[in-house]
Amino acid sequence: MHTNNDIEQLIYLFAKLPGLGQRSARRVVLHLLEDKEVRLNTLANSLLNAENNVIQCKVCGNLDSSETCNICCCLKRDESIIIIVETVSELWAIERSNIFNGKYHVLGSTLSASHNKTPDTLGLPQLLIRCKEHNVQELIIATNTTVEGQTTAYFITEYFSDCNVKISKLANGIPMGGELDYLDEGTLSAALKLRQKFE
Amino acid sequence: MHTNNDIEQLIYLFAKLPGLGQRSARRVVLHLLEDKEVRLNTLANSLLNAENNVIQCKVCGNLDSSETCNICCCLKRDESIIIIVETVSELWAIERSNIFNGKYHVLGSTLSASHNKTPDTLGLPQLLIRCKEHNVQELIIATNTTVEGQTTAYFITEYFSDCNVKISKLANGIPMGGELDYLDEGTLSAALKLRQKFE
Repeated sequence: MHTNNDIEQLIYLFAKLPGLGQRSARRVVLHLLEDKEVRLNTLANSLLNAENNVIQCKVCGNLDSSETCNICCCLKRDESIIIIVETVSELWAIERSNIFNGKYHVLGSTLSASHNKTPDTLGLPQLLIRCKEHNVQELIIATNTTVEGQTTAYFITEYFSDCNVKISKLANGIPMGGELDYLDEGTLSAALKLRQKFE
Repeated sequence: MHTNNDIEQLIYLFAKLPGLGQRSARRVVLHLLEDKEVRLNTLANSLLNAENNVIQCKVCGNLDSSETCNICCCLKRDESIIIIVETVSELWAIERSNIFNGKYHVLGSTLSASHNKTPDTLGLPQLLIRCKEHNVQELIIATNTTVEGQTTAYFITEYFSDCNVKISKLANGIPMGGELDYLDEGTLSAALKLRQKFE
Protein backbone atom coordinates (compact mmCIF):
# COMPACT_ATOMS: atom_id res chain seq x y z
CA MET A 1 0.00 0.00 0.00
CA HIS A 2 1.29 3.40 -1.01
CA THR A 3 0.68 5.20 2.22
CA ASN A 4 3.00 7.19 4.29
CA ASN A 5 5.12 5.76 7.12
CA ASP A 6 3.86 8.23 9.71
CA ILE A 7 0.26 7.36 8.84
CA GLU A 8 0.94 3.63 8.80
CA GLN A 9 2.62 3.79 12.19
CA LEU A 10 -0.35 5.68 13.61
CA ILE A 11 -2.85 3.19 12.16
CA TYR A 12 -0.75 0.34 13.55
CA LEU A 13 -0.79 1.84 17.06
CA PHE A 14 -4.52 2.58 17.04
CA ALA A 15 -5.29 -0.90 15.67
CA LYS A 16 -3.57 -2.41 18.73
CA LEU A 17 -5.85 -0.58 21.19
CA PRO A 18 -8.57 -2.73 22.81
CA GLY A 19 -11.77 -2.78 20.76
CA LEU A 20 -10.18 -1.34 17.63
CA GLY A 21 -8.99 -3.14 14.51
CA GLN A 22 -7.41 -2.20 11.21
CA ARG A 23 -10.57 -0.75 9.74
CA SER A 24 -11.59 1.35 12.74
CA ALA A 25 -7.99 2.48 13.22
CA ARG A 26 -7.87 3.77 9.64
CA ARG A 27 -11.13 5.61 10.21
CA VAL A 28 -9.89 7.19 13.43
CA VAL A 29 -6.57 8.24 11.87
CA LEU A 30 -8.24 9.87 8.86
CA HIS A 31 -10.66 11.62 11.20
CA LEU A 32 -7.71 13.02 13.17
CA LEU A 33 -5.74 14.02 10.07
CA GLU A 34 -8.76 15.89 8.72
CA ASP A 35 -8.24 18.49 11.41
CA LYS A 36 -4.62 18.24 12.45
CA GLU A 37 -4.34 21.60 14.18
CA VAL A 38 -7.18 21.05 16.62
CA ARG A 39 -8.30 17.43 16.75
CA LEU A 40 -4.97 15.63 16.37
CA ASN A 41 -2.93 18.16 18.31
CA THR A 42 -5.34 18.23 21.26
CA LEU A 43 -5.27 14.46 21.55
CA ALA A 44 -1.47 14.33 21.35
CA ASN A 45 -1.10 16.97 24.06
CA SER A 46 -3.72 15.39 26.25
CA LEU A 47 -1.80 12.10 26.03
CA LEU A 48 1.44 13.83 26.99
CA ASN A 49 -0.29 15.57 29.90
CA ALA A 50 -1.60 12.26 31.17
CA GLU A 51 1.84 10.71 30.74
CA ASN A 52 3.47 13.42 32.83
CA ASN A 53 0.81 13.83 35.48
CA VAL A 54 -1.05 10.60 36.11
CA ILE A 55 0.45 8.34 38.75
CA GLN A 56 -0.70 5.42 40.85
CA CYS A 57 -2.01 6.26 44.32
CA LYS A 58 0.42 4.76 46.82
CA VAL A 59 -2.38 3.93 49.25
CA CYS A 60 -5.05 2.26 47.09
CA GLY A 61 -3.61 1.88 43.57
CA ASN A 62 -6.11 4.22 41.90
CA LEU A 63 -4.85 6.53 39.13
CA ASP A 64 -4.64 10.27 39.84
CA SER A 65 -2.17 13.13 39.63
CA SER A 66 -1.18 13.16 43.27
CA GLU A 67 0.68 10.54 45.32
CA THR A 68 -2.46 10.00 47.36
CA CYS A 69 -5.58 9.99 45.20
CA ASN A 70 -8.73 12.09 45.49
CA ILE A 71 -10.66 9.25 47.09
CA CYS A 72 -7.99 8.39 49.68
CA CYS A 73 -7.61 12.11 50.57
CA CYS A 74 -11.34 12.73 50.89
CA LEU A 75 -12.23 13.27 54.54
CA LYS A 76 -15.95 12.81 53.90
CA ARG A 77 -15.50 9.18 52.94
CA ASP A 78 -15.79 6.33 55.39
CA GLU A 79 -12.34 4.92 56.16
CA SER A 80 -13.69 1.86 57.91
CA ILE A 81 -14.96 0.10 54.79
CA ILE A 82 -12.84 -0.88 51.79
CA ILE A 83 -13.91 -2.42 48.47
CA ILE A 84 -11.27 -4.61 46.87
CA VAL A 85 -11.35 -4.48 43.05
CA GLU A 86 -9.17 -6.04 40.37
CA THR A 87 -8.48 -2.95 38.30
CA VAL A 88 -9.12 0.80 38.20
CA SER A 89 -11.81 0.14 35.62
CA GLU A 90 -14.00 -1.55 38.29
CA LEU A 91 -13.26 1.26 40.76
CA TRP A 92 -14.56 3.72 38.15
CA ALA A 93 -17.66 1.59 37.58
CA ILE A 94 -18.53 1.64 41.30
CA GLU A 95 -17.80 5.39 41.53
CA ARG A 96 -20.11 6.05 38.57
CA SER A 97 -22.94 4.27 40.34
CA ASN A 98 -22.57 6.77 43.18
CA ILE A 99 -23.65 4.35 45.90
CA PHE A 100 -20.46 3.77 47.82
CA ASN A 101 -18.85 6.23 50.20
CA GLY A 102 -15.97 4.17 51.52
CA LYS A 103 -12.47 3.59 50.21
CA TYR A 104 -10.84 1.18 47.75
CA HIS A 105 -7.99 -1.21 47.26
CA VAL A 106 -6.98 -1.93 43.65
CA LEU A 107 -5.27 -5.31 43.29
CA GLY A 108 -3.98 -4.54 39.78
CA SER A 109 -4.65 -8.11 38.65
CA THR A 110 -5.63 -11.50 39.98
CA LEU A 111 -3.29 -14.00 41.62
CA SER A 112 -1.46 -15.99 38.98
CA ALA A 113 1.57 -18.22 39.36
CA SER A 114 2.18 -18.20 35.61
CA HIS A 115 2.12 -14.40 35.41
CA ASN A 116 4.14 -14.03 38.60
CA LYS A 117 1.34 -12.31 40.50
CA THR A 118 1.87 -12.97 44.20
CA PRO A 119 0.04 -11.56 47.26
CA ASP A 120 2.85 -8.99 47.40
CA THR A 121 2.22 -7.81 43.84
CA LEU A 122 -1.44 -7.37 44.69
CA GLY A 123 -0.52 -5.17 47.67
CA LEU A 124 -2.11 -7.44 50.27
CA PRO A 125 0.56 -6.86 52.97
CA GLN A 126 0.02 -3.06 52.70
CA LEU A 127 -3.74 -3.61 52.85
CA LEU A 128 -3.27 -5.62 56.04
CA ILE A 129 -1.30 -2.76 57.61
CA ARG A 130 -3.90 -0.29 56.37
CA CYS A 131 -6.68 -2.33 58.02
CA LYS A 132 -4.90 -2.29 61.35
CA GLU A 133 -3.78 1.33 61.28
CA HIS A 134 -7.13 2.78 60.23
CA ASN A 135 -9.28 0.38 62.17
CA VAL A 136 -11.04 -0.95 59.07
CA GLN A 137 -14.26 -2.79 59.93
CA GLU A 138 -15.22 -4.39 56.61
CA LEU A 139 -13.56 -5.53 53.40
CA ILE A 140 -15.93 -6.04 50.46
CA ILE A 141 -14.39 -8.28 47.83
CA ALA A 142 -15.52 -7.23 44.35
CA THR A 143 -13.21 -9.24 42.12
CA ASN A 144 -14.75 -10.41 38.84
CA THR A 145 -16.81 -13.60 38.82
CA THR A 146 -14.23 -15.42 36.73
CA VAL A 147 -12.26 -18.44 37.95
CA GLU A 148 -9.19 -16.22 38.55
CA GLY A 149 -11.26 -13.56 40.28
CA GLN A 150 -12.97 -16.06 42.56
CA THR A 151 -9.73 -17.88 43.40
CA THR A 152 -8.19 -14.56 44.33
CA ALA A 153 -11.27 -13.69 46.42
CA TYR A 154 -10.96 -16.98 48.29
CA PHE A 155 -7.26 -16.37 48.90
CA ILE A 156 -7.99 -12.90 50.28
CA THR A 157 -10.52 -14.28 52.79
CA GLU A 158 -7.85 -16.72 53.98
CA TYR A 159 -5.22 -13.99 54.10
CA PHE A 160 -7.38 -11.79 56.33
CA SER A 161 -8.85 -14.58 58.44
CA ASP A 162 -6.69 -13.73 61.49
CA CYS A 163 -7.45 -10.06 61.18
CA ASN A 164 -10.41 -8.73 63.07
CA VAL A 165 -12.32 -7.52 60.03
CA LYS A 166 -15.63 -8.55 58.46
CA ILE A 167 -15.19 -9.88 54.93
CA SER A 168 -18.08 -9.78 52.50
CA LYS A 169 -18.61 -9.97 48.74
CA LEU A 170 -21.01 -8.40 46.27
CA ALA A 171 -24.31 -10.30 46.00
CA ASN A 172 -24.85 -12.70 43.13
CA GLY A 173 -28.23 -12.79 41.45
CA ILE A 174 -30.36 -11.58 38.61
CA PRO A 175 -29.23 -8.23 37.16
CA MET A 176 -31.90 -5.50 37.23
CA GLY A 177 -33.83 -5.58 33.94
CA GLY A 178 -32.43 -9.04 33.21
CA GLU A 179 -34.70 -11.59 31.54
CA LEU A 180 -34.61 -15.05 33.08
CA ASP A 181 -34.62 -16.62 29.64
CA TYR A 182 -31.24 -15.14 28.78
CA LEU A 183 -29.47 -15.84 32.06
CA ASP A 184 -26.92 -18.58 32.49
CA GLU A 185 -27.59 -21.47 34.88
CA GLY A 186 -24.98 -20.37 37.39
CA THR A 187 -26.66 -17.01 37.90
CA LEU A 188 -30.12 -18.57 38.06
CA SER A 189 -29.10 -21.17 40.61
CA ALA A 190 -27.34 -18.52 42.74
CA ALA A 191 -30.43 -16.31 42.57
CA LEU A 192 -32.65 -19.20 43.68
CA LYS A 193 -30.36 -20.29 46.50
CA LEU A 194 -29.93 -16.74 47.81
CA ARG A 195 -33.62 -15.85 47.42
CA GLN A 196 -34.76 -12.92 49.51
CA LYS A 197 -37.90 -12.15 51.47
CA PHE A 198 -40.42 -10.32 49.28
CA GLU A 199 -40.79 -6.82 50.72
CA MET B 1 -17.05 10.69 39.49
CA HIS B 2 -13.83 11.03 41.43
CA THR B 3 -11.42 10.74 38.56
CA ASN B 4 -8.64 12.97 37.56
CA ASN B 5 -8.99 15.87 35.09
CA ASP B 6 -6.22 14.65 32.80
CA ILE B 7 -7.82 11.23 32.60
CA GLU B 8 -11.30 12.65 32.06
CA GLN B 9 -10.06 14.91 29.27
CA LEU B 10 -8.39 11.95 27.58
CA ILE B 11 -11.53 9.81 27.86
CA TYR B 12 -13.60 12.70 26.49
CA LEU B 13 -11.32 13.04 23.44
CA PHE B 14 -11.22 9.32 22.72
CA ALA B 15 -15.00 9.04 23.11
CA LYS B 16 -15.42 11.62 20.33
CA LEU B 17 -13.46 9.52 17.82
CA PRO B 18 -15.55 7.71 15.20
CA GLY B 19 -16.62 4.24 16.33
CA LEU B 20 -15.74 4.83 19.98
CA GLY B 21 -18.02 5.75 22.87
CA GLN B 22 -17.66 6.40 26.59
CA ARG B 23 -17.13 2.77 27.51
CA SER B 24 -14.57 1.95 24.81
CA ALA B 25 -12.79 5.26 25.46
CA ARG B 26 -12.42 4.37 29.15
CA ARG B 27 -11.05 0.96 28.18
CA VAL B 28 -8.55 2.48 25.74
CA VAL B 29 -7.37 5.12 28.22
CA LEU B 30 -6.81 2.57 31.00
CA HIS B 31 -4.96 0.34 28.53
CA LEU B 32 -2.67 3.25 27.65
CA LEU B 33 -2.15 4.31 31.28
CA GLU B 34 -1.18 0.75 32.20
CA ASP B 35 2.05 1.23 30.29
CA LYS B 36 2.66 4.97 30.12
CA GLU B 37 6.34 4.86 29.21
CA VAL B 38 5.94 2.74 26.10
CA ARG B 39 2.31 2.47 24.99
CA LEU B 40 1.04 5.96 25.80
CA ASN B 41 4.27 7.75 24.94
CA THR B 42 4.64 6.00 21.57
CA LEU B 43 1.12 6.95 20.58
CA ALA B 44 1.56 10.58 21.65
CA ASN B 45 4.79 10.90 19.70
CA SER B 46 3.38 9.16 16.67
CA LEU B 47 0.51 11.66 16.69
CA LEU B 48 2.92 14.59 16.91
CA ASN B 49 5.01 13.13 14.05
CA ALA B 50 1.94 12.84 11.88
CA GLU B 51 0.90 16.36 12.80
CA ASN B 52 4.25 17.75 11.74
CA ASN B 53 4.86 15.66 8.64
CA VAL B 54 1.62 14.68 6.96
CA ILE B 55 0.32 17.13 4.37
CA GLN B 56 -2.14 17.04 1.51
CA CYS B 57 -0.70 16.31 -1.94
CA LYS B 58 -1.15 19.44 -4.04
CA VAL B 59 -1.77 17.37 -7.17
CA CYS B 60 -4.32 14.77 -6.12
CA GLY B 61 -5.32 15.54 -2.52
CA ASN B 62 -3.89 12.32 -1.03
CA LEU B 63 -2.15 12.49 2.36
CA ASP B 64 1.63 12.07 2.50
CA SER B 65 4.71 13.77 3.87
CA SER B 66 5.78 15.43 0.63
CA GLU B 67 4.07 18.18 -1.37
CA THR B 68 3.55 15.67 -4.17
CA CYS B 69 2.53 12.26 -2.85
CA ASN B 70 4.10 8.87 -3.47
CA ILE B 71 1.47 7.91 -6.02
CA CYS B 72 1.72 11.16 -8.02
CA CYS B 73 5.53 10.94 -8.02
CA CYS B 74 5.63 7.27 -9.07
CA LEU B 75 6.92 7.02 -12.65
CA LYS B 76 5.73 3.43 -13.00
CA ARG B 77 2.09 4.45 -12.73
CA ASP B 78 -0.11 5.22 -15.72
CA GLU B 79 -0.70 8.97 -15.93
CA SER B 80 -3.42 8.65 -18.52
CA ILE B 81 -6.06 7.20 -16.21
CA ILE B 82 -7.40 8.84 -13.07
CA ILE B 83 -9.85 7.50 -10.49
CA ILE B 84 -11.94 10.17 -8.80
CA VAL B 85 -12.77 9.33 -5.16
CA GLU B 86 -14.57 11.22 -2.42
CA THR B 87 -12.01 10.84 0.35
CA VAL B 88 -8.56 9.43 1.08
CA SER B 89 -10.25 6.50 2.73
CA GLU B 90 -11.55 5.27 -0.66
CA LEU B 91 -8.14 5.86 -2.25
CA TRP B 92 -6.64 3.59 0.41
CA ALA B 93 -9.32 0.96 -0.21
CA ILE B 94 -8.48 0.84 -3.92
CA GLU B 95 -4.74 0.80 -3.21
CA ARG B 96 -5.20 -2.12 -0.82
CA SER B 97 -6.91 -4.13 -3.54
CA ASN B 98 -3.75 -3.74 -5.63
CA ILE B 99 -5.55 -3.74 -8.97
CA PHE B 100 -5.15 -0.18 -10.17
CA ASN B 101 -1.94 1.31 -11.54
CA GLY B 102 -3.15 4.76 -12.53
CA LYS B 103 -3.47 7.99 -10.56
CA TYR B 104 -6.11 9.56 -8.33
CA HIS B 105 -8.07 12.70 -7.68
CA VAL B 106 -9.49 13.11 -4.16
CA LEU B 107 -12.54 15.39 -4.10
CA GLY B 108 -12.46 15.77 -0.33
CA SER B 109 -16.26 15.65 -0.15
CA THR B 110 -19.32 15.69 -2.36
CA LEU B 111 -20.94 18.76 -3.91
CA SER B 112 -23.20 20.44 -1.39
CA ALA B 113 -24.76 23.88 -1.49
CA SER B 114 -25.59 23.74 2.22
CA HIS B 115 -22.00 22.83 3.17
CA ASN B 116 -20.52 25.32 0.71
CA LYS B 117 -18.88 22.63 -1.41
CA THR B 118 -18.50 23.99 -4.93
CA PRO B 119 -16.68 22.53 -7.96
CA ASP B 120 -13.73 24.73 -6.90
CA THR B 121 -13.60 23.20 -3.42
CA LEU B 122 -13.54 19.74 -5.01
CA GLY B 123 -10.57 20.76 -7.16
CA LEU B 124 -12.34 20.21 -10.48
CA PRO B 125 -10.68 23.17 -12.28
CA GLN B 126 -7.23 21.81 -11.35
CA LEU B 127 -8.29 18.35 -12.50
CA LEU B 128 -9.35 19.84 -15.84
CA ILE B 129 -5.92 21.45 -16.29
CA ARG B 130 -4.27 18.19 -15.23
CA CYS B 131 -6.27 16.26 -17.84
CA LYS B 132 -5.11 18.61 -20.60
CA GLU B 133 -1.49 18.90 -19.50
CA HIS B 134 -0.91 15.19 -18.98
CA ASN B 135 -3.08 14.00 -21.83
CA VAL B 136 -5.38 11.99 -19.56
CA GLN B 137 -7.45 9.46 -21.53
CA GLU B 138 -9.93 8.23 -18.94
CA LEU B 139 -11.56 9.42 -15.74
CA ILE B 140 -13.15 6.70 -13.61
CA ILE B 141 -15.71 8.12 -11.21
CA ALA B 142 -15.72 6.15 -7.95
CA THR B 143 -17.86 8.35 -5.70
CA ASN B 144 -20.03 6.49 -3.20
CA THR B 145 -23.41 5.18 -4.33
CA THR B 146 -25.25 7.63 -2.10
CA VAL B 147 -27.52 10.37 -3.42
CA GLU B 148 -24.78 12.96 -2.82
CA GLY B 149 -22.12 10.77 -4.40
CA GLN B 150 -24.21 10.09 -7.49
CA THR B 151 -25.24 13.74 -7.90
CA THR B 152 -21.58 14.70 -7.73
CA ALA B 153 -20.73 11.97 -10.25
CA TYR B 154 -23.35 13.31 -12.65
CA PHE B 155 -22.04 16.85 -12.22
CA ILE B 156 -18.49 15.70 -12.99
CA THR B 157 -19.58 14.05 -16.25
CA GLU B 158 -21.20 17.35 -17.28
CA TYR B 159 -18.16 19.31 -16.20
CA PHE B 160 -15.84 17.24 -18.37
CA SER B 161 -18.22 16.81 -21.32
CA ASP B 162 -16.32 19.29 -23.52
CA CYS B 163 -13.01 17.74 -22.59
CA ASN B 164 -11.74 14.96 -24.83
CA VAL B 165 -11.63 12.31 -22.11
CA LYS B 166 -13.51 9.06 -21.64
CA ILE B 167 -15.60 9.08 -18.47
CA SER B 168 -16.55 5.80 -16.82
CA LYS B 169 -17.75 4.61 -13.44
CA LEU B 170 -17.25 1.50 -11.32
CA ALA B 171 -19.62 -1.34 -12.24
CA ASN B 172 -22.71 -1.92 -10.14
CA GLY B 173 -23.73 -5.48 -9.38
CA ILE B 174 -23.61 -8.32 -6.91
CA PRO B 175 -20.59 -8.20 -4.58
CA MET B 176 -18.37 -11.29 -4.72
CA GLY B 177 -19.52 -13.77 -2.08
CA GLY B 178 -22.81 -11.88 -1.77
CA GLU B 179 -25.99 -13.86 -1.26
CA LEU B 180 -28.92 -12.77 -3.40
CA ASP B 181 -31.25 -13.16 -0.48
CA TYR B 182 -29.55 -10.40 1.46
CA LEU B 183 -29.13 -7.89 -1.37
CA ASP B 184 -31.28 -4.80 -1.76
CA GLU B 185 -33.55 -4.40 -4.75
CA GLY B 186 -31.48 -1.62 -6.30
CA THR B 187 -28.40 -3.81 -6.50
CA LEU B 188 -30.37 -6.78 -7.80
CA SER B 189 -32.08 -4.77 -10.51
CA ALA B 190 -28.75 -3.20 -11.55
CA ALA B 191 -27.15 -6.64 -11.69
CA LEU B 192 -29.97 -7.96 -13.86
CA LYS B 193 -29.96 -4.98 -16.21
CA LEU B 194 -26.18 -5.04 -16.62
CA ARG B 195 -25.99 -8.84 -16.92
CA GLN B 196 -22.83 -10.09 -18.56
CA LYS B 197 -22.08 -12.88 -21.03
CA PHE B 198 -21.24 -16.12 -19.18
CA GLU B 199 -17.60 -16.88 -19.90
